[in-house]
Amino acid sequence: MQDDIIFTLTDTAGGLEVADWSVTSGELGIHSGAPFEIVKRTLHGGRQEGSTLVTIRSGRLAVTVIPTRGMGILRASLDGIGFGWASPVDEVVHPSFIRLGERNGLGWLEGFNELMVRCGYEWSGHPTVDGDKVYTLHGRAGNTPASKVEVRIEREAPHRITLSGLIKEKAFKNVEFETWTELTVVPGDTGFSLDDRLVNRADYAHTYEVIYHTNVGRPVLEEGARVIGPFTQVAPFNDAAKPDLATWDRYRGPTRDFDEMLYACELKAGADGRTEVALVNASGTLGFSVAYHVGEMPAFTLWKNTDTDRQGYVTGLEPGSNYPYPLPVERAAGRLKTLEPGAEARFRLHFDLLTDKSAVDACAARIDRLKKGVEVAVHGEPVLRSRTKA
Amino acid sequence: MQDDIIFTLTDTAGGLEVADWSVTSGELGIHSGAPFEIVKRTLHGGRQEGSTLVTIRSGRLAVTVIPTRGMGILRASLDGIGFGWASPVDEVVHPSFIRLGERNGLGWLEGFNELMVRCGYEWSGHPTVDGDKVYTLHGRAGNTPASKVEVRIEREAPHRITLSGLIKEKAFKNVEFETWTELTVVPGDTGFSLDDRLVNRADYAHTYEVIYHTNVGRPVLEEGARVIGPFTQVAPFNDAAKPDLATWDRYRGPTRDFDEMLYACELKAGADGRTEVALVNASGTLGFSVAYHVGEMPAFTLWKNTDTDRQGYVTGLEPGSNYPYPLPVERAAGRLKTLEPGAEARFRLHFDLLTDKSAVDACAARIDRLKKGVEVAVHGEPVLRSRTKA
Amino acid sequence: MQDDIIFTLTDTAGGLEVADWSVTSGELGIHSGAPFEIVKRTLHGGRQEGSTLVTIRSGRLAVTVIPTRGMGILRASLDGIGFGWASPVDEVVHPSFIRLGERNGLGWLEGFNELMVRCGYEWSGHPTVDGDKVYTLHGRAGNTPASKVEVRIEREAPHRITLSGLIKEKAFKNVEFETWTELTVVPGDTGFSLDDRLVNRADYAHTYEVIYHTNVGRPVLEEGARVIGPFTQVAPFNDAAKPDLATWDRYRGPTRDFDEMLYACELKAGADGRTEVALVNASGTLGFSVAYHVGEMPAFTLWKNTDTDRQGYVTGLEPGSNYPYPLPVERAAGRLKTLEPGAEARFRLHFDLLTDKSAVDACAARIDRLKKGVEVAVHGEPVLRSRTKA
Repeated sequence: MQDDIIFTLTDTAGGLEVADWSVTSGELGIHSGAPFEIVKRTLHGGRQEGSTLVTIRSGRLAVTVIPTRGMGILRASLDGIGFGWASPVDEVVHPSFIRLGERNGLGWLEGFNELMVRCGYEWSGHPTVDGDKVYTLHGRAGNTPASKVEVRIEREAPHRITLSGLIKEKAFKNVEFETWTELTVVPGDTGFSLDDRLVNRADYAHTYEVIYHTNVGRPVLEEGARVIGPFTQVAPFNDAAKPDLATWDRYRGPTRDFDEMLYACELKAGADGRTEVALVNASGTLGFSVAYHVGEMPAFTLWKNTDTDRQGYVTGLEPGSNYPYPLPVERAAGRLKTLEPGAEARFRLHFDLLTDKSAVDACAARIDRLKKGVEVAVHGEPVLRSRTKA
Repeated sequence: MQDDIIFTLTDTAGGLEVADWSVTSGELGIHSGAPFEIVKRTLHGGRQEGSTLVTIRSGRLAVTVIPTRGMGILRASLDGIGFGWASPVDEVVHPSFIRLGERNGLGWLEGFNELMVRCGYEWSGHPTVDGDKVYTLHGRAGNTPASKVEVRIEREAPHRITLSGLIKEKAFKNVEFETWTELTVVPGDTGFSLDDRLVNRADYAHTYEVIYHTNVGRPVLEEGARVIGPFTQVAPFNDAAKPDLATWDRYRGPTRDFDEMLYACELKAGADGRTEVALVNASGTLGFSVAYHVGEMPAFTLWKNTDTDRQGYVTGLEPGSNYPYPLPVERAAGRLKTLEPGAEARFRLHFDLLTDKSAVDACAARIDRLKKGVEVAVHGEPVLRSRTKA
Repeated sequence: MQDDIIFTLTDTAGGLEVADWSVTSGELGIHSGAPFEIVKRTLHGGRQEGSTLVTIRSGRLAVTVIPTRGMGILRASLDGIGFGWASPVDEVVHPSFIRLGERNGLGWLEGFNELMVRCGYEWSGHPTVDGDKVYTLHGRAGNTPASKVEVRIEREAPHRITLSGLIKEKAFKNVEFETWTELTVVPGDTGFSLDDRLVNRADYAHTYEVIYHTNVGRPVLEEGARVIGPFTQVAPFNDAAKPDLATWDRYRGPTRDFDEMLYACELKAGADGRTEVALVNASGTLGFSVAYHVGEMPAFTLWKNTDTDRQGYVTGLEPGSNYPYPLPVERAAGRLKTLEPGAEARFRLHFDLLTDKSAVDACAARIDRLKKGVEVAVHGEPVLRSRTKA
């Protein structure tokens, strides 16, 4: 077996940050399979100054990652159909301009526009003050620039491309987390995978929370779009989500004054521990699927933000170790996880971009198999808020 | 009519920021009228790292704008006489070093040294906490780097030069403001104009506040300097301003332990809706005039900060939609403005630099005409604080 | 006498920041004495983006300063033996990523890993809110990039090398401090000196606090290591430090759940006003000495953080104008110093790196001479907390 081809784009150990860079399969002498191109750019101007983007284009697929924003995924596309959403935040804001504590702990909202942003890992939920601890919205990882970024390309077909990034959350006496993220594209595929490992480098145990805040808008999201998956439990996140409970798995079109409704859910996994959930458009010709391991992320939050287009017409499919309730609520509910010294937690996800009826049908068939024998319990009250797992 | 000449210096849409650049009228083949030069520089070192300056020099006039600080105006000069002030903050601080929430909401003071800084547009006044909303001093626009900066030069005489800048205030679920600022210099003129348009891009109405915090120190400001204008109402901003009420329109020399006194004022406009107010030195040989539209900015704050020279001997002539009382006070007084979805508010100002007696006399004559028939009501108490407009 | 050789590496007055630079004694035509090399580097990637380092190497000695972090000293070495410590914070974090107000005033901990960091000068102690004033941990100087950085080399032997840096703490109406720091290396020496001048540029008196937070870990720190010095007073900083009071001057090895213990101390000076305190390893073959002027810094804090290696096994030898109690405590105890307008305070320290038994013995002998006739009062209670000096 031949060695992989490795490019280091960022490495704080060497004080390195490559500003602009690209490589193509042709330049690498790789001529089998789907041709690919990988490009890194540094953005300038306004609150984007210094933001970096890495785009992997391979065959029909393109996916763009933001190393300076915690390796979040800005957007993806297949056959030119874009997956992501149109946030009022229309720039890739660099973390040096974000103050998470501003707006009473809601500063995170000034940068939020990704297809997928990691909420975590010290905490991941809604802001709160708990004794002398101050928790800002959705944690710090999504606004932390990566300390190490590498591109690895396998010399052998199918020439798997892996973009890895290291996110550090470190503060003396407080936390020493390292999250090694890996996004993999197999040339020719219609989706991509994440394989993240959160390591507690400290000598003491530390709690963690994570939510993979995955956000999809038009064209998949539209009036009559549906979320499908082997749901076992669905409960309103709070009173605001009760009015649409009967249609929790269906979407409205852009709706003035809708704001948002959230549902706390649980999903069944298959024999391999994996589950799959998808957003499908009204006619079943477009979709976006998220597969993940229920053992790694037992909580699933469905965020329906079907407000007007300009406000950000979007839904969140959010697997997590927890729901986005404030940390003390999660602790009381028994959902706050703990990492022992040196221990690691792994989070694996696969995203599939579905751009025709046959792809949507295949996804729906996979999900139907998972749903076999499953009955969903839809609760009238936010019962998952305080549920303590055995 | 020929097309304008356009140079794009910043554009986040294209990820562009030109670091250092200049152009002269000669290079453009423009030989009629006053020669001009436009220069952009990027500053480095300390808390200035990454700050940008654009200076327009034309004939006797020079004006320097700070794109990275919300298109604020650092200083201007005519015939080598400088207009601006000497703040203890002696660097052009880049917003990445400013935390508006620090110092109990007074972090803005760590960057304040401009001839003109925009306070706004989500809020513009003194810091306060109002329920779950946290308002820091003078809003965020002045510490937001411009997302788009262009220089436009008309090919036809008088070859008007316009520096435009886009300031975004965007946060998901909170605000989607765009302010398109334009500073225009007509070669040969002794002043310059602003024509700003604040647009509410959101699908919901949003309140706004704005104060054009215009600050002048020596040499115009000195003992015996005066503020002149068609004032109709003058009231102390608070109790601290009462002692000097009798001499509200006259200035002291640098005065130890003076700190500051503020007066809330209203001015009469002419038939065209425009008013003019000026600071004039003791001998009437130097002055600085601000003309603006009273309909756009009905509130005028006079800020007398005649403390010692090193503390920042300066006065503020501050047209605004409101006074700098905390937002809840402005709301209660009926001064909080609202922008409907897609609506815009326009703010036009003209600044004139007066460097000899005839220029001062001409300005005073214009103001005298505005004052015809006007009687100023000077109130003993801060009555404008709570006044609710009909 | 010949002029010094001067290199300006940073100067905000000229908008200058030299990114990468070096010079050697050979290039300067200096061939007498120990050869030297001075190197400036700019770091990139992650939260290091834009951090700068200046390293002076001369003979057996190397010392690395961080201009972007208030001229703090990252580490030093002699004969390849490193002095400093291994913090969980393993990058040189740029201040644009530090928010001192985060973590309930403990944001400073996200960047802390220096051999010496200046705490001050507006305040230097533990975080607190005092009326409308918010004090974050250890003040702002350590997270302020230098506004002016110069290297000065004397043409005449011993070709003294001085790295000077200007730290500004300026906020309109609040503070106008300039600290002119100087770090001097005499080629051939085994240590280096600081000579800092804090100037109050304002027209009003301002209080100040300073702690030179000097931190040493392995290899000097180990089980059985000792701190030696002419201590006259030792008191636990708080109740947590009482258990180890009997062995206050001896160190444990890495100790799980130890966290930290602090002691508030006073030291006797010699006839020249200078005192010396040192950390010495168990076998007396390695040490690190800090000499300073007791009149300039009457308070000495001993910080024993002998927790596990990964948590940061380290001790702090911390001369200061005050102890790190919150500012109101220091004020009440009479330790809050005041600088009159235009006045300056000087802080001189000398650090010596001891890498063999003879060096340690010589240091111990110097300290023994200072201890002659001194009896240390070890208090059972935190009596120095509230002591008001006459």
